[in-house]
Amino acid sequence: MDILVPYDVNTETKEGQRRLRRVARVCTGFGQRVQKSLFECRVTQAQLEELEARLVKIIDGKKDSLRIYILPGGRNRLVRVHGIDRYIDFEDPLIV
Amino acid sequence: MDILVPYDVNTETKEGQRRLRRVARVCTGFGQRVQKSLFECRVTQAQLEELEARLVKIIDGKKDSLRIYILPGGRNRLVRVHGIDRYIDFEDPLIV
Repeated sequence: MDILVPYDVNTETKEGQRRLRRVARVCTGFGQRVQKSLFECRVTQAQLEELEARLVKIIDGKKDSLRIYILPGGRNRLVRVHGIDRYIDFEDPLIV
Repeated sequence: MDILVPYDVNTETKEGQRRLRRVARVCTGFGQRVQKSLFECRVTQAQLEELEARLVKIIDGKKDSLRIYILPGGRNRLVRVHGIDRYIDFEDPLIV
């Protein structure tokens, strides 16, 4: 399934900056960064639960915001993109 | 329908800072800010087209990123929220 992971981490402190880096690092293991604090991931149900659990452990619930949106039917038919687009569709035929 | 509007506006210039304010102002007219650069909106098809057209006119396609995700079936069953949550469900019964 395709999911979206937007987050807002409060970086006023060094600790907050560290949380931000750790959130991004974890997300990188599950998908693609499409905006500064937005990842698109293609995951199984088990991976979704693991990603969520790991991120919830990192963030500070009183200072940060983490949201996960499930995109039923896949991101291709649900997203409209304007401007810079970092997304790479790995299922597109690779032309060599 | 429920939609998500995440954006990344390059604010290195005064002009970029102005674009950011204008994007947020337009989105405020269509929905709720749930993170710094993420809005949730409940719109008709016509409103979606209008919102998209107005935002596309504001952003600089070479410097900014604008995405719109449609959330089929409504945001309640698709979103998982952790930490700070600014979302207000106006369809919840108001207890006075």
